[in-house]
Amino acid sequence: MEFKPDVLNEKCGSRQVLGHCTSRWGSLVLIALLDGTMRFSALRRRIGGVSERMLTQSLRLLEEDGLVQRTAHQVVPPHVDYDLTPMGREVAHHVLALAQCIEGNLAAIMHRQTSRGAGAAAPPA
Amino acid sequence: MEFKPDVLNEKCGSRQVLGHCTSRWGSLVLIALLDGTMRFSALRRRIGGVSERMLTQSLRLLEEDGLVQRTAHQVVPPHVDYDLTPMGREVAHHVLALAQCIEGNLAAIMHRQTSRGAGAAAPPA
Repeated sequence: MEFKPDVLNEKCGSRQVLGHCTSRWGSLVLIALLDGTMRFSALRRRIGGVSERMLTQSLRLLEEDGLVQRTAHQVVPPHVDYDLTPMGREVAHHVLALAQCIEGNLAAIMHRQTSRGAGAAAPPA
Repeated sequence: MEFKPDVLNEKCGSRQVLGHCTSRWGSLVLIALLDGTMRFSALRRRIGGVSERMLTQSLRLLEEDGLVQRTAHQVVPPHVDYDLTPMGREVAHHVLALAQCIEGNLAAIMHRQTSRGAGAAAPPA
């Protein structure tokens, strides 16, 4: 019987990868790298609010998944570039589409949040 | 000057909403609700591994953003349904497309992870 990946199945490895791609900083790394190859410092400037530690960790996970390519150039002074792999680019386009969908609906979402105010939420039942 | 939403800007409200839609359980709630209206217990069965507390919290955030509609039926016994709003459906389709992209590439990703083993990751430079 063939294994069919399913993120709704807690034992499926796809859920972990989805987690890397949708983590607070992972998603923004993927979006930022759609602009092209970047050094660590440029990426950090591009992604508002990310710490060096969180950016390092997010890049490492995405690299381990084969979505980000890290290239160390043996030049003086040495430098390191980050880029999306073809698979990473495919994933990143979906993350960007999601982000753009939210950006496009933001006015309606903010209006909704404001009109509800801090109203007490009902129990799940 | 018009405000243009941008998730890469840490002050933009879109980043918080993106966080709700891509949180560990929020993303799976959106995907599961694409199957149609569901009660809390059915949603919980559909999303492997989610706790009652995390499901309640995720639903509440998505409801506050106007992406999920909660309907309490005044019947005996009373029951509550959850459904996507039109905006939630739009967002959910993008989350599903992302998940399906990862599911489709999972074999390559797992192979990549295995072939790298627990190799020491290089510093960011």
